[in-house]
Amino acid sequence: MSQNIYFTPGPSQLFYTVQDHIKNALKQDIGAISHRGKAFQSLYQSTQENLRELLDVPKDYDIFFLSSATEIWERIIQNLVDQSSYHFVNGSFSKRFYQFTQDYQKQSKARTVEFGSGFDQLDIPEEAELIAITKNETSTGFSFHDDDLMAIRQQNPGQLIALDVVSSIPAVPLDFDLVDTAYFSVQKCFGLPAGLGVWMVNQRCYDQHARLKAKGKVTGSYHSLDSLKSNGEKHQTPETPNALNIYLLGKVAEDMLRKGPKMIENETNYKSALLYQTFEQHDSLLPFIKEKKNRSKTVAVGEVDGGNEKLMKYLADKKMITGSGYGPFKKDHIRIANFPTHSKEQVELLCDTIASFS
Amino acid sequence: MSQNIYFTPGPSQLFYTVQDHIKNALKQDIGAISHRGKAFQSLYQSTQENLRELLDVPKDYDIFFLSSATEIWERIIQNLVDQSSYHFVNGSFSKRFYQFTQDYQKQSKARTVEFGSGFDQLDIPEEAELIAITKNETSTGFSFHDDDLMAIRQQNPGQLIALDVVSSIPAVPLDFDLVDTAYFSVQKCFGLPAGLGVWMVNQRCYDQHARLKAKGKVTGSYHSLDSLKSNGEKHQTPETPNALNIYLLGKVAEDMLRKGPKMIENETNYKSALLYQTFEQHDSLLPFIKEKKNRSKTVAVGEVDGGNEKLMKYLADKKMITGSGYGPFKKDHIRIANFPTHSKEQVELLCDTIASFS
Repeated sequence: MSQNIYFTPGPSQLFYTVQDHIKNALKQDIGAISHRGKAFQSLYQSTQENLRELLDVPKDYDIFFLSSATEIWERIIQNLVDQSSYHFVNGSFSKRFYQFTQDYQKQSKARTVEFGSGFDQLDIPEEAELIAITKNETSTGFSFHDDDLMAIRQQNPGQLIALDVVSSIPAVPLDFDLVDTAYFSVQKCFGLPAGLGVWMVNQRCYDQHARLKAKGKVTGSYHSLDSLKSNGEKHQTPETPNALNIYLLGKVAEDMLRKGPKMIENETNYKSALLYQTFEQHDSLLPFIKEKKNRSKTVAVGEVDGGNEKLMKYLADKKMITGSGYGPFKKDHIRIANFPTHSKEQVELLCDTIASFS
Repeated sequence: MSQNIYFTPGPSQLFYTVQDHIKNALKQDIGAISHRGKAFQSLYQSTQENLRELLDVPKDYDIFFLSSATEIWERIIQNLVDQSSYHFVNGSFSKRFYQFTQDYQKQSKARTVEFGSGFDQLDIPEEAELIAITKNETSTGFSFHDDDLMAIRQQNPGQLIALDVVSSIPAVPLDFDLVDTAYFSVQKCFGLPAGLGVWMVNQRCYDQHARLKAKGKVTGSYHSLDSLKSNGEKHQTPETPNALNIYLLGKVAEDMLRKGPKMIENETNYKSALLYQTFEQHDSLLPFIKEKKNRSKTVAVGEVDGGNEKLMKYLADKKMITGSGYGPFKKDHIRIANFPTHSKEQVELLCDTIASFS
């Protein structure tokens, strides 16, 4: 690998063991084995078991491998929404998921607030079948607080909750009792090359899917929930999958289990505190998210006085690659990933370097 | 890599340069770079240019990267079929594409003949908007002859033709004048790890897509044809893509250009002739496809007298991994990939070993 350290919020720095795992994958012909054979089935099962243990996924939630979290947005709409869903929108990614419902001509509604702001109103229209919440808005660094999630869960027992945990899991633990489905992609906290999305669903999702089928609705084809399930029961995927990434995900999950989820969480909290402290102490920087309880632990976003260009170049010259703002904030924000692969020492170095910028 | 040689029809033996390209990809941080940055755009463009040159793709055909050929079946139905398509079905893969039209509740029809048989009737119902043909049925080793493709093209100027070239391209050249859209996945003749599908479309596809949109039809979301096009114009993909595989595809296409498409085609023909000769001269083997003009150049399928188990084990003990039959032929057929990565020497060794089996 080059001398660069990627603090970009995904794709990001590869997890520090990935290079070795790729070498081993090549030795074991992971790219050549049949996706209908025993070696693949065993690999699939092992990745599932490691993920289940790492993320503490309850037994009644199934885990499926798709191609991206973007794809999973579409599959959720096709499989779990008949007429209408309800979306909390305060950033580019939550907005895009909502946009997909419009592409699919659903009667979905969104509570849209200014990007980066919190939601005062948590009430949900009765007709919504599914509530879409983004745990960690990678575009703005807004974190949806678990207290709010819990309140929504308690007040809406009849509705499905879909939680986007794209850039939070596993650095920020997820209580599965609060959701019916959750999903992420592997190029964020898992530090893998992109090309794999992970979709977790419970029995209530299957029930909703069955209702749509019974009503004669189109729910897709190979990645329809029943197709994923019948293939998953054989430890297979409906299509020829990205087996290399499924293998790497299992191996990185194993490495993380060895380190311990609690240790990963603690280090995330420490590094995150350091980043926000650095923003607050710097004359030209301010955390974009004002409410401390809504500041993302994994993606720290700062407003840079006078624009991000000079600061990002200053850091890049020192081999630290950071992310620019997303969408409307492209030139004004700096986005810094604080993922499990980023060591305390690397984040300390980054913070010291930011502090030295004037 | 292990000592095994994978003659399985996809995933198969990795192209012989892939391991080195993966090492270089890691050195260049291909797994970490932003899919919205210049380095990725340049990678995307370079892969497109190499593919265009290698496959002789005319300028008025666009090239897009999706996650699998299976996904592309779905996108063709969503984007290019309003009411009805027509499918030539004589194997498991052509059948599955047709099945997807039923999942999407289209009025599509299929001409279904016995698996492995040819089609006597090439007439197309007038209402079909798109004609789906499988150039190389990976499940049976049936090759749809170019003369038949040309006849269909000439007799149906108003209809779109979608050609599945999953396991033929680039070992068997494609005349783009005969098709409006063609697609393949990279784990066959390109010898890459799975997880990428390539979709090529011409202006008539955009026109049909626009007609569907104008009628208010749902054409998907992020992988709707207009979304692919508007992102493609920026040398980007709508989602965070499998950048590693896009890089590897570009590099392998470059290697193949260096070798020369004509040389690849000639070697394919030589190795293919050797395989069928070996089948014909063996007491326990018969080519499954009876008509010589319909025998696949890239996937040779033989019926094994008494079942495939002993022969496949005999070969596997000598480190040559072959494919079993597909679907209903699981125990009776042997399927042997003859892809560009399989050298003449390797195929000669395989044929000698098959000949020595009794």
